[in-house]
Amino acid sequence: MNQTRIGLIGFGYWGPNLARNLHAIPNCDLSAISDASPARLQKAEGLYRATTFFESGEALIDSDIEAVAIATPAYSHYPLAVAALQADKHVLVEKPLAMTVAEAEELVELAATRERVLMVGHVFEYVPAVRHIKALLDKHAIGETYYLYSTRVNLGRIQTDINALWSIAPHDISIYLYLLGQMPERVSARGAKYLNGQVEDVIFLTLHFPGGIMAHVHASWLDPSKVRRLTVVGSEKMIIYDDLAAEGKVKVYDKGAIRATDPQYGEYQYRLHSGDIAIPKLPLLEPLRMECEDFVRAIQTDSRPQTDGANGLRVVRVLEAAQRSLESDGLPVAVL
Amino acid sequence: MNQTRIGLIGFGYWGPNLARNLHAIPNCDLSAISDASPARLQKAEGLYRATTFFESGEALIDSDIEAVAIATPAYSHYPLAVAALQADKHVLVEKPLAMTVAEAEELVELAATRERVLMVGHVFEYVPAVRHIKALLDKHAIGETYYLYSTRVNLGRIQTDINALWSIAPHDISIYLYLLGQMPERVSARGAKYLNGQVEDVIFLTLHFPGGIMAHVHASWLDPSKVRRLTVVGSEKMIIYDDLAAEGKVKVYDKGAIRATDPQYGEYQYRLHSGDIAIPKLPLLEPLRMECEDFVRAIQTDSRPQTDGANGLRVVRVLEAAQRSLESDGLPVAVL
Amino acid sequence: MNQTRIGLIGFGYWGPNLARNLHAIPNCDLSAISDASPARLQKAEGLYRATTFFESGEALIDSDIEAVAIATPAYSHYPLAVAALQADKHVLVEKPLAMTVAEAEELVELAATRERVLMVGHVFEYVPAVRHIKALLDKHAIGETYYLYSTRVNLGRIQTDINALWSIAPHDISIYLYLLGQMPERVSARGAKYLNGQVEDVIFLTLHFPGGIMAHVHASWLDPSKVRRLTVVGSEKMIIYDDLAAEGKVKVYDKGAIRATDPQYGEYQYRLHSGDIAIPKLPLLEPLRMECEDFVRAIQTDSRPQTDGANGLRVVRVLEAAQRSLESDGLPVAVL
Amino acid sequence: MNQTRIGLIGFGYWGPNLARNLHAIPNCDLSAISDASPARLQKAEGLYRATTFFESGEALIDSDIEAVAIATPAYSHYPLAVAALQADKHVLVEKPLAMTVAEAEELVELAATRERVLMVGHVFEYVPAVRHIKALLDKHAIGETYYLYSTRVNLGRIQTDINALWSIAPHDISIYLYLLGQMPERVSARGAKYLNGQVEDVIFLTLHFPGGIMAHVHASWLDPSKVRRLTVVGSEKMIIYDDLAAEGKVKVYDKGAIRATDPQYGEYQYRLHSGDIAIPKLPLLEPLRMECEDFVRAIQTDSRPQTDGANGLRVVRVLEAAQRSLESDGLPVAVL
Repeated sequence: MNQTRIGLIGFGYWGPNLARNLHAIPNCDLSAISDASPARLQKAEGLYRATTFFESGEALIDSDIEAVAIATPAYSHYPLAVAALQADKHVLVEKPLAMTVAEAEELVELAATRERVLMVGHVFEYVPAVRHIKALLDKHAIGETYYLYSTRVNLGRIQTDINALWSIAPHDISIYLYLLGQMPERVSARGAKYLNGQVEDVIFLTLHFPGGIMAHVHASWLDPSKVRRLTVVGSEKMIIYDDLAAEGKVKVYDKGAIRATDPQYGEYQYRLHSGDIAIPKLPLLEPLRMECEDFVRAIQTDSRPQTDGANGLRVVRVLEAAQRSLESDGLPVAVL
Repeated sequence: MNQTRIGLIGFGYWGPNLARNLHAIPNCDLSAISDASPARLQKAEGLYRATTFFESGEALIDSDIEAVAIATPAYSHYPLAVAALQADKHVLVEKPLAMTVAEAEELVELAATRERVLMVGHVFEYVPAVRHIKALLDKHAIGETYYLYSTRVNLGRIQTDINALWSIAPHDISIYLYLLGQMPERVSARGAKYLNGQVEDVIFLTLHFPGGIMAHVHASWLDPSKVRRLTVVGSEKMIIYDDLAAEGKVKVYDKGAIRATDPQYGEYQYRLHSGDIAIPKLPLLEPLRMECEDFVRAIQTDSRPQTDGANGLRVVRVLEAAQRSLESDGLPVAVL
Repeated sequence: MNQTRIGLIGFGYWGPNLARNLHAIPNCDLSAISDASPARLQKAEGLYRATTFFESGEALIDSDIEAVAIATPAYSHYPLAVAALQADKHVLVEKPLAMTVAEAEELVELAATRERVLMVGHVFEYVPAVRHIKALLDKHAIGETYYLYSTRVNLGRIQTDINALWSIAPHDISIYLYLLGQMPERVSARGAKYLNGQVEDVIFLTLHFPGGIMAHVHASWLDPSKVRRLTVVGSEKMIIYDDLAAEGKVKVYDKGAIRATDPQYGEYQYRLHSGDIAIPKLPLLEPLRMECEDFVRAIQTDSRPQTDGANGLRVVRVLEAAQRSLESDGLPVAVL
Repeated sequence: MNQTRIGLIGFGYWGPNLARNLHAIPNCDLSAISDASPARLQKAEGLYRATTFFESGEALIDSDIEAVAIATPAYSHYPLAVAALQADKHVLVEKPLAMTVAEAEELVELAATRERVLMVGHVFEYVPAVRHIKALLDKHAIGETYYLYSTRVNLGRIQTDINALWSIAPHDISIYLYLLGQMPERVSARGAKYLNGQVEDVIFLTLHFPGGIMAHVHASWLDPSKVRRLTVVGSEKMIIYDDLAAEGKVKVYDKGAIRATDPQYGEYQYRLHSGDIAIPKLPLLEPLRMECEDFVRAIQTDSRPQTDGANGLRVVRVLEAAQRSLESDGLPVAVL
């Protein structure tokens, strides 16, 4: 079997998950790992003995590998990805792809020039629940899509260099873009900095899509409860995706409202329908495994992965507009 | 016992609840009920036989009563309250007190001139869970208050004349003003009209209070699930008030974050604490009963009820600013 | 409309619920109420002004009514029902029908002789969720029925004259007999007396039905949580009925186990299937209202109600056998 | 550091968990693994490269190790443990220790003669939640202990050679013996065989302890939901331990009942108290890690582990009595 030799840069919070999956995929060889922290590198060495280890991403990029996965702090995504592409490596970058649209555009262009795979780790696009909802929307099973909102909060994963918008909301934005298949026209965001005064610990983000579809994100690392929930409201059905539900992560409600006249009082009202709830059985697949497999497949078949560079760029476009809104007290900002 | 003779105007959605409580209070005599709908009036007659019935609020106001409770559609609050005050009746108006600040100010002034009690039905200020949280905040039990957010959604109680801001959010606004004891400096609101194109079915409202405290409201009558939840995030403790929880409506989390240096990697990070959760036993009091008793007590003792006209005016100030923001794509609007 | 004149004996815990429903049914006239307690009688007088009041059930039975509903302590069910039937009244008795099989048989016989309706208040047979499950079982939608178990516990409704078996378990027994359409062959019960040493506060009851179907009941009034849950395990589907669930009281799981050989290790194992979960929309009907309507309909149409005397007798047969088992340290006792 | 060389026999369902923990403990060397299945052995080889592998437990026992952990099917626990002790190895056996009291007694005796550590894997005695409850009971924080009951059901882990009593209930029995610190006087058990007709798929077990304390176990591998819940009912407080709760596995309810006279109706009743609920923060320790550490510590310090052979024997005494009851239609069987 042809094994793609992949190096992993960064063995902090997310890197070990990538390592575990890259290690487990048959047609992939996790041949190198780098981390600037000796303690982290030692931990990696204890787990993956047949692998080569580097103290810097640059050294890893210079080594004899075909592809790199970058799981370092957000600000280093761009320089490391540039270096890797210039060294003709295929690149999987954790979200966000980059910290500016200009950077993200450069990466997409560079990948095209070098004919390398560029992929971003928007892992929720590989989540069976999200794919199930996408299928329902695509076949118009919920009627007209009205609005969506998500809550992604917890106590923890506090960042000091990037705010909750860039740290947490890329998940929700990538889900929205994927589900709706289009870009928002404009966004607005508000937030507040409570801990270090430098970055927002909590943000509220509104996205306005064509056709009046609205989407909202509440992201925070200061919350008593861990919540990861998305609600989709349609004219005929409504969906709740609760990623932490013990049973039934996705619930499809046969619920909606139609205009009608009240028979008793003659008033102009709405008649609600509220029928069965269906909880579909979803495949037990690890999304990150599927993401990694998509990366390897794209490399080996010279094709595009689902969350390719263009996908990552679109999310950065939304993030950058949201950031401008955040800095101007929530003024609506067009997404170009 | 001195019984205050009260008339009730409106026997639709909320009126029957007021009737039941006014009927049950010993020092109160529910002596009149009016409703323009014969069907509703008939229903009231079946329940309260010793009461006089009127086909209009104006006729009821003209009758021999001391006070009126107004539970009619929002746009009629102001004219009915004016008429009642001019007829020297004490007035309890359902929320919102009025549809503009000018109207609300006029009502407050008129009540002062006529020396009548003017009260608004911000019933959540009488909810034991809310009062418990207020007591915690007042004694600084949660440290510094960072931010609050509430979700008040359901499928139903769809309105065609007022939007979700005016129909649902007055509850949350009155809770925030009560808990924080101050007015927001500015607000911004976004929403969307899906059903009849006239009023917003869903709104997202942000309130900015002095000292950087932020509060957020998500209100909607288009949702698969009924949710009534408020979260208060403090520097040392955090609180969730879930009005629909089967056991433990209020949970007080001993949770917070402080700045610290990571001992292993030497990085600058936050140390989280996460201790016990306390679920206080709350008194089993019906909030509407307490609200009605406060109205009768204010009348009989010539004092102010907790949710007096000034209280109602403050909420209308916030609503009017939020409405302006809603109409200008979410621009921040100062609350005067 | 023909209105059946019904008298209610007992206005304690359950009587007010019966009164409210009998009062609301159009072809029924709640014409009399009795209770030995002046305080309770006064409460009833405040609610039902057009009704005649009596200080004893005997006096009410002697009055000009056609039927009685008996909601008194369990030990008085039999003497009151006998007196009412002998006075040619139709009788609705709260569960249990009587405290011995002999008494229950006498009541059934007496009702037949006098040609009166005899009904027992097994209200769960009128619960939409239970009827839905019954329909699923009747059409063999869950495959073979393996076993059922229910938990009915709470803190409260502590009895001092009858134990948890006679106070709580009649609900579960009537549900099991209704769902399975047959009598258990034998039962065994265990319990313990913690509070007054006279009656069991907690019981565990096992029922063995023909064909190896087993059913279990855990009933207690000493529990930290209120639980009312029934699980039905079939070979192809499984059902949970949680009466206190906020949304989805009935969940139908497409789950089961079949024998198969493990393809990897060659061992003899079971292959499980675990598919969708369906939450059916159930009609919003008050079961007690339906029970009362069934009583009135049986009287007016000279027919049998669903939970007729024979139904009540069957449950008492099970209870008496279970009581004998309880008194003999759980020895299995045949149900005759 | 002195590293105890331990061999693991059995790499099926539970063995990999033992391997992971034995591998992670610093003063322990997982030096050998055996499994009769080549596929399983290959899986182990992929994970633990520095380890020696054997195709049989006997061969492993003959090798140069100091201790063995036995995670094989229940019927092989005894012969393998005997062989290991006779070879002067320390032994950790998964639950149940053996399939008869005679076998278990022989193992305890043999371990004493050979002066080896004999331990059984009653892992729940190392669970922080269980230890927290034990501490509450030991300091009489819940008043008098009335009764306990547990539900341990799921769809899966279906066994064909041992029934649900021997497969599942050892957990609950070991928890009860640990919490109450004494043996039950007698037990009774009922169950049913639905799948292969050889072993009970579901059992209901009652344990009667001195002083009237009752404990109940419902164990089944045929259930739509995974439930692992224990309730402890005391005279002053009550506890629920829900092992699957997302937040708050242990809830301590300030609830109870005392005898009192009803002030309104003069009847003899109980007065309930229902106060706060406390959810203690529990340490985030992996119980199996603590169990393995206890084994290594016992070996290295020549001391007894918490769940020693005598502990395992006590549980087998209860199981054997319960099995006899199960085979005699639930007759109560004394525990000797």
